[in-house]
Amino acid sequence: MSENLLPTMSDREIAFQLYEVIGIESLTERSQFAHLDKNAFNDVLRTASALARDHFQTHNRLSDSLEPQLVDGKVITPPQLKEALKQFVNAGFMSAHNAEDEGGLQLPWCVLQACFSYFYAANVGTAAYPFLTIAAANLIKAFGSEEQKTRFMRPMFAGRYFGTMCLSEPHAGSGLGEITTRAVRQADGTYRIVGSKMWISGGDHDLAETIVHMVLARVEGAPLGTRGISLFIVSRDIPGENGELVRNDVAVAGLNHKLGQRGTVNTFLKFGEGGHCVAYLVGEENQGLGHMFHMMNEARVGVGLSSASLGMAGFLYSRAYAAERRQGKRNGSTPPPRINEYPDVKRMLLSQKAAVEGALGLCLFAAWLVDERETAVTEEARLSAARFLDFLTPIVKSWPAKHCLEANKDAIQILGGYGYSREYPVEQIYRDNRLNEIHEGTTGIQAIDFLNRKLAIEDGAGLRELLDRISSDVAIAAAVPELAALAERLQNAASSVARTAAALENKRRTERADRFIENASLFLDMAGHLVIGWIWLRQAISAASARLGDVGADRAFYDGKLLSCRYFLGYELPKIDYLETVVSTCHHLVADADPDSI
Amino acid sequence: MSENLLPTMSDREIAFQLYEVIGIESLTERSQFAHLDKNAFNDVLRTASALARDHFQTHNRLSDSLEPQLVDGKVITPPQLKEALKQFVNAGFMSAHNAEDEGGLQLPWCVLQACFSYFYAANVGTAAYPFLTIAAANLIKAFGSEEQKTRFMRPMFAGRYFGTMCLSEPHAGSGLGEITTRAVRQADGTYRIVGSKMWISGGDHDLAETIVHMVLARVEGAPLGTRGISLFIVSRDIPGENGELVRNDVAVAGLNHKLGQRGTVNTFLKFGEGGHCVAYLVGEENQGLGHMFHMMNEARVGVGLSSASLGMAGFLYSRAYAAERRQGKRNGSTPPPRINEYPDVKRMLLSQKAAVEGALGLCLFAAWLVDERETAVTEEARLSAARFLDFLTPIVKSWPAKHCLEANKDAIQILGGYGYSREYPVEQIYRDNRLNEIHEGTTGIQAIDFLNRKLAIEDGAGLRELLDRISSDVAIAAAVPELAALAERLQNAASSVARTAAALENKRRTERADRFIENASLFLDMAGHLVIGWIWLRQAISAASARLGDVGADRAFYDGKLLSCRYFLGYELPKIDYLETVVSTCHHLVADADPDSI
Repeated sequence: MSENLLPTMSDREIAFQLYEVIGIESLTERSQFAHLDKNAFNDVLRTASALARDHFQTHNRLSDSLEPQLVDGKVITPPQLKEALKQFVNAGFMSAHNAEDEGGLQLPWCVLQACFSYFYAANVGTAAYPFLTIAAANLIKAFGSEEQKTRFMRPMFAGRYFGTMCLSEPHAGSGLGEITTRAVRQADGTYRIVGSKMWISGGDHDLAETIVHMVLARVEGAPLGTRGISLFIVSRDIPGENGELVRNDVAVAGLNHKLGQRGTVNTFLKFGEGGHCVAYLVGEENQGLGHMFHMMNEARVGVGLSSASLGMAGFLYSRAYAAERRQGKRNGSTPPPRINEYPDVKRMLLSQKAAVEGALGLCLFAAWLVDERETAVTEEARLSAARFLDFLTPIVKSWPAKHCLEANKDAIQILGGYGYSREYPVEQIYRDNRLNEIHEGTTGIQAIDFLNRKLAIEDGAGLRELLDRISSDVAIAAAVPELAALAERLQNAASSVARTAAALENKRRTERADRFIENASLFLDMAGHLVIGWIWLRQAISAASARLGDVGADRAFYDGKLLSCRYFLGYELPKIDYLETVVSTCHHLVADADPDSI
Repeated sequence: MSENLLPTMSDREIAFQLYEVIGIESLTERSQFAHLDKNAFNDVLRTASALARDHFQTHNRLSDSLEPQLVDGKVITPPQLKEALKQFVNAGFMSAHNAEDEGGLQLPWCVLQACFSYFYAANVGTAAYPFLTIAAANLIKAFGSEEQKTRFMRPMFAGRYFGTMCLSEPHAGSGLGEITTRAVRQADGTYRIVGSKMWISGGDHDLAETIVHMVLARVEGAPLGTRGISLFIVSRDIPGENGELVRNDVAVAGLNHKLGQRGTVNTFLKFGEGGHCVAYLVGEENQGLGHMFHMMNEARVGVGLSSASLGMAGFLYSRAYAAERRQGKRNGSTPPPRINEYPDVKRMLLSQKAAVEGALGLCLFAAWLVDERETAVTEEARLSAARFLDFLTPIVKSWPAKHCLEANKDAIQILGGYGYSREYPVEQIYRDNRLNEIHEGTTGIQAIDFLNRKLAIEDGAGLRELLDRISSDVAIAAAVPELAALAERLQNAASSVARTAAALENKRRTERADRFIENASLFLDMAGHLVIGWIWLRQAISAASARLGDVGADRAFYDGKLLSCRYFLGYELPKIDYLETVVSTCHHLVADADPDSI
């Protein structure tokens, strides 16, 4: 079985999620997307699929084993990576979401994200470069000056410059309040930066004319902590008036060698060692973290989507393997059964499918909320989408990262010894996916954000919206005989989450802060399971409805959707009760634990 | 923080398990161990600890990045590996469990296993060579002829020859009934072997004079399936009468490049391509699988122990890291807090500690059952130990492999970006540990063995023995005020497992085989959690009892034991109820699932 011939993303699945569950065709009724139709969406999805297969997947193993190298202070990447990204840029993906008069395709964000799922699934290490570049350029688009847009953003969306996010420092990862990189104001309005940044993905390479770093730093005299952080553009090379590039004072001090996503070079950068690192303030001083977080939601949806896509790649490979591999007792002269006939293998396939298609559905739904936030017809709908996306984001970031990694683990398990061999693709997928619970904010940070902030905003409006949406879909499903029992199960799970949230709200008012958040990660997982259960009920409603018509060859596809919904609600949803038990019985055990006794 | 300076195994923990929980000193009252005392045990443990630190840990990263190479048909290993194993042999560990008149130390198996925990934790890739050699030599010891013992076993226990287990073939891993390697009887009583073996750890190297392969093959005309398999010695080089070695017809066809445990070369071997591969039958024809499984129980305990040891290495590293790393808000002019003061980090440390010390306790208890089986004073006690070990083995193999991998995942999470960097040791530990749910019988295979066989033997005698032992420890704990609530919790969990087992017994009689076993993995995990809960209650009883005396500097250690018991029983044990819900409500969902719909 040659790995390169197997698809890593499912076209049918993407079409189901976009058209049948979310119903994105209705977007074309809006003025922003009136130039598009389903055929146009399909064209761009097919382009992404082909590009991912022909130019990303083909060097996925190679750029894992042949990592970017630091030679004479410069990072060198394999030529296949350059070629893939050239094709990506030429196909217009770097600017696809931008307005037509900005050179973009004016494509819905959710369609662009669906395209990205192909790139992530085929080669996450290479896909990270445009992912970061688009995120950095979007940041300038939101907060930069016209001059900054012309000098930096436009060449980025044109694929000539690439971008990075420079937040962490060696001593400050989750605790951004502690960063010490300094910015000194100059008479000409520019700044000089001095400091070190750690874990910078794409921090140097030979893939673009220059690299535009979005750097968090403190202006002299700024307040302590997170309220004294400003956002700067620090370009590796400074574009002059005529476009010529002059080297800036940015140096690669070293590379970090990672467990996975090795094609994405990870750098330790030093700014201003020579004292002349030129930087441009983006937006206002001391507003840097807020600016950064404006973009962060989209980046976090991107991490969730990359986790789901890697989950899909592992699922599809192990499913194909299990459909071919024969093992076990012969029955007379017949060959041994295919291993996908064994219950434990079926269980591991179903478990993967439930996690992966649930996560993918959630991430595309979240991407659609971005479109709703930007283009919904009423202001109320736009605000509601913004609020709901904000509430869901910690789940979108962390649930796929956790549970699709578990799915990849099962993919390895199905392949047995082949699974842990580097001659087969699943062990790399597993390594690649392990990073996703850490970068762009660890699961622990997401959990605290969810409990401390997201649950509290507008007195719990996010959770209420989730529960309302669930109730409304439960009512629809309750009217469909084959879904009625599933609807009831989901409603019970919703009650369990609501009960726990109310108990936590009580704790918020009465308990010490560390006792209040001690089970934040468990609550995030509870809420995540509820959300994925809901996403599955939505899929089941669509599938049950489709099956009423003539589905032809799609029969097995829709059967699989109903089966997976039953699997998730039967095997996974009861975890919510288990977690409720823990959260409601284990008080202070963790918060009061003495570190010296652990 | 230099990784080489940090211990990867805890001396205090090993002493606690051996002396305070299991109480191995009483073994010295038996004639077999009358030449030993606690000082002697401590001497050998200290030797193992020092050797592991000075010769195993020192090249752990090196042999991960510099894998064994195949050069001109021969496997070349780094010199550090040779030196470590020379030291290991010189210290007497290869033969430590053997009788004194066989050149051994006549050491209890559980003490030797405790020594091995140091080697596994320091460098599992190197420790695998003696692990396999001892297992192979023990197989000859149990079933070989006197001549085979002289020619092969004794040089193996002397560390001159190394050994392997050759079971799997490219098309047959879990399904050993399908192996096709053939053996042809010769007039002189020897056999000629033809066939291929896959995933052979230590299948070739430059670490010993020769390599003794224990090979499963079919003699011509043997019955189909597992009842037609015989066990052979196939040495890479055949020792002549005067000890000179003549090359046999065994070739390395290729190497598998693994996710982890890379220092252990993994080979694809071809036997008899030239038609003259000499083999010696061990025991009787067609009894090979039974012979192999005699040894397999001990090997499976070894895999469990290596998982627990890797879990410990990750736990100790991340704990030390969290005690040094500072992050987050300053309070006035004080430095930021250590991250081990944050609840989510404490939770991940406690979760690791609970899994790792629970698993280690279980594996050492299982190793002690081997001693009981061999040396207990009454035949009843010996039979009871044999039965209980047999029952527990699938749990000992699979629970640590699953849950200590999860612990390693948490170790990475605590280190954040450093965790997924190869410059830090935890990502390697995670990769190394991922193999343990697969080799020596996958978790799925353990689950089927547990449900199909272990639960049924003597009408459920194994489970009854477990429940009896739990009841008796629950009675002890119920009388200790600080343990009474924990005892009740464990008893409830035992009832849940007993109830589920009874329901499954009913299914065994009334259902199709695939429906009966569809949730085997879940039931194995339920039973595993119960066993680990019990192991923790035993530890808490010992700790609570010790705390009644003057514990001095050990106060925090014992507090930690009680805290971890509360953690495991509070956070983990309720999973049993969740799993009971799934097993008792999800009937046929997996077994009846159509593979084409997944």
